[in-house]
Amino acid sequence: MLPISYADALPLLKNLDGAVVPESWRGALPITYHFGGKTPTVHLKLAFNWDIKPIYNVIAKMKGAERADQWIIRGNHRDAWVNGADDPLSGLVAMMEEARGLSILAKTGWRPKRTIIYAAWDGEEQGLLGSTEWAEHHAAELKEKAAVYINTDSNGRGFLGIGGSHTLEKFINEVGRNIQDPQTELTVWERTRALQIVSGSPTERKELLAKSDLPIYALGSGSDYTPFLQHLGIASLNIGFGGEDGGGSYHSIYDSFDHYSRFGDPGFAYGVALAKVCGHATLRLANADRLPFEFTNFAETIKRYADEVTKLTDTMREDTQTMNQMVASGMLKNVQDPTETFVVPKAKAHVPYLNFAPIQNALAKLNESAKNFQKVSNVKQISGQFQKSLDVMLYKTERALTRNAGLPRRDWFRHQIYAPGFYTGYGVKTLPGVREAIEQRDWKEAGEQIDIVAKTIENFAAEIDKAARMF
Amino acid sequence: MLPISYADALPLLKNLDGAVVPESWRGALPITYHFGGKTPTVHLKLAFNWDIKPIYNVIAKMKGAERADQWIIRGNHRDAWVNGADDPLSGLVAMMEEARGLSILAKTGWRPKRTIIYAAWDGEEQGLLGSTEWAEHHAAELKEKAAVYINTDSNGRGFLGIGGSHTLEKFINEVGRNIQDPQTELTVWERTRALQIVSGSPTERKELLAKSDLPIYALGSGSDYTPFLQHLGIASLNIGFGGEDGGGSYHSIYDSFDHYSRFGDPGFAYGVALAKVCGHATLRLANADRLPFEFTNFAETIKRYADEVTKLTDTMREDTQTMNQMVASGMLKNVQDPTETFVVPKAKAHVPYLNFAPIQNALAKLNESAKNFQKVSNVKQISGQFQKSLDVMLYKTERALTRNAGLPRRDWFRHQIYAPGFYTGYGVKTLPGVREAIEQRDWKEAGEQIDIVAKTIENFAAEIDKAARMF
Repeated sequence: MLPISYADALPLLKNLDGAVVPESWRGALPITYHFGGKTPTVHLKLAFNWDIKPIYNVIAKMKGAERADQWIIRGNHRDAWVNGADDPLSGLVAMMEEARGLSILAKTGWRPKRTIIYAAWDGEEQGLLGSTEWAEHHAAELKEKAAVYINTDSNGRGFLGIGGSHTLEKFINEVGRNIQDPQTELTVWERTRALQIVSGSPTERKELLAKSDLPIYALGSGSDYTPFLQHLGIASLNIGFGGEDGGGSYHSIYDSFDHYSRFGDPGFAYGVALAKVCGHATLRLANADRLPFEFTNFAETIKRYADEVTKLTDTMREDTQTMNQMVASGMLKNVQDPTETFVVPKAKAHVPYLNFAPIQNALAKLNESAKNFQKVSNVKQISGQFQKSLDVMLYKTERALTRNAGLPRRDWFRHQIYAPGFYTGYGVKTLPGVREAIEQRDWKEAGEQIDIVAKTIENFAAEIDKAARMF
Repeated sequence: MLPISYADALPLLKNLDGAVVPESWRGALPITYHFGGKTPTVHLKLAFNWDIKPIYNVIAKMKGAERADQWIIRGNHRDAWVNGADDPLSGLVAMMEEARGLSILAKTGWRPKRTIIYAAWDGEEQGLLGSTEWAEHHAAELKEKAAVYINTDSNGRGFLGIGGSHTLEKFINEVGRNIQDPQTELTVWERTRALQIVSGSPTERKELLAKSDLPIYALGSGSDYTPFLQHLGIASLNIGFGGEDGGGSYHSIYDSFDHYSRFGDPGFAYGVALAKVCGHATLRLANADRLPFEFTNFAETIKRYADEVTKLTDTMREDTQTMNQMVASGMLKNVQDPTETFVVPKAKAHVPYLNFAPIQNALAKLNESAKNFQKVSNVKQISGQFQKSLDVMLYKTERALTRNAGLPRRDWFRHQIYAPGFYTGYGVKTLPGVREAIEQRDWKEAGEQIDIVAKTIENFAAEIDKAARMF
């Protein structure tokens, strides 16, 4: 496969002389789009550059004054597909502005409580190469020391979007509530909440109005958080603004300074807003007496994922029954156009009732543990000498969500709650082991994965209990 | 407005130089579609033909031997928009073939019990002119004598489609169950039933499987049944095959014999099938000892329409509440892009709870009357001398569904159950007085129309009771 430009594609597309393609296949070139037909053969001479080039991550570290072995990592990639004004520079300049702010603080003699690491990753576009190499190379140290990874990438005018670990949902909501939107009288939090409520379905709207925090989305893949979150189990966030920035220049030569400064983020107001959100988040994480992990939002979210996979099985069962009925009764055959090729599908095996009880029991336990931790940590103080080890317990809860054996057929992906889909690429699958086994109708594996997820949640709840006992 | 051809439109569209239009606005011409922009002015010199021309309906009548004053009317228009192989000739030739069949029977000395009228309407494309003039001119006689009107129009390869009066639903289902589909081993009824079930939503599928008859659709407008059904209250049917005939030539110069015979209905097999369905229907109606009107399917269908308008009000109430909340809380204002013009809508008045009880009570009565008539007419015989007046009672039940005052703001449309929508053109609105008042948020009128519909249904039920007492 070789991506080519409009100018090179036009003569090729223009000379296709088969049937006119369906409407959704038509692009915006000034031709009628056709299928191949009896088109003459074209010989293309292609030249590829197979050079092996070094790539360079740029890493800056400011050592923590008090808890130097607890790392807050902040990253954005620095390589681009063609030009890269939006992707990745709009995120990178915001991160550099945060770092510049810290350097000014540092000149006054200030030092953060915890260590802060800034990383500008290379080779992201070729498969998250820079961040993955770094994360794998430092894996042992990261597993011990990394508390949180905050990622940014493209950024533009519009609404705050946040994805990541739901143990950080409450925390990042607090940050968003304190940052002013550049265009309105509102906070960035209020504007995004309004968008979610206005554009939600009636059911979603009710849920959103009942919830005090903005739900953050689950991370699949497509940027440098992947090795940190899904391979090492480091709680992560992915933050960016967008939705009013037009788009259309992604991964093309048109992703230029000119285009970005006219359409992406005129005046760079949302670059500043991004630096504020991520700068506040980084500084709070670096300096908090206790790391702001919280578990009730996580418990509610995982409950929702479990409900989804249960419902998915029920829906598949009904759909399978209906389809089998359509096949068996001949209905499907009866509607076929006899002039068109049509193969009646085979009846599918019955979708069994799966035993979701292990997950439900684990979730009941998790809910209890999360509420207990919330209560205890709200009312009790913890003496200074134990704060450091409590921190470690808190950030290592995310490690408890991973499993060294990884997911079936892809052991590099160790997180049992979030993964990019095996077949979806960037798109996330939550409770991936269970969900994908169901989607593939592998009922034996689904049962095994239910037990694994249940055990994972139990371990996670046990870690929370251990942390609660520190108070 | 003047419709023009692709060749004439191309230079005009090509020279527009504004922004590129949204995807759904793009046609298939080999240009990039633009808005107007700073396009130079074009002076068009148009010539119209304002001649007044006579139009000609062709009417053939075969007098009934026994009940000459009971008319079964069969019609199809004969004028076309440009060429007219599909619209209207594919339907017209089927009707002519039916008539030819009758002429052969007549040569043997056979005469139908009731009078059969064949009508080839002119001026349909300019607004149902021929059929409307004829129906208005003969209104008094038609009200007395017309039992059923059967309409056809365009026809093509595919599935049987039937719309019309639900008092004829059971009857036309019986006809469809006896006609062979030209392409398969199935009856035309089985094939359409399979299509409805396979393409239905899960809820629709359940309803269809529970029902022994194919539901027929309600008639709006767009062909010559309108003056008969909606102006005079004559029970009507509209019948045609389609869905596998490609389409794309409608109302254009491409609606040619060549196009139709290659793509519309190769071999004219569905023209023959249409002649069979409508020929069987016409002959059965003409010769039945008792006209096959039936009221339980009608009662069930009207119950469904009443449920729809009740639900419509509930949905509007919820949507209005939600939207008012979005306006009052500032949510809608908060999501606006400040660089685009956006006017926050005004809050709407609360949607009241309407009193649907009159319709529900009338429907309960109708249901009873329909079931009683079904029972009585199944078990009891009626002596020959009363059959004729029972027929008149039966076909005049449809008149009871009309009201001389007509619908609000359009008194020509008298039917209280079926009408084309005031704003939708061809599209049907069932229980139009009630439904459109609700849609326009005219709660006072909605209340009045509920009473009118209830009264209409009561009168209709009383007519059924009268007919039942004949046995």
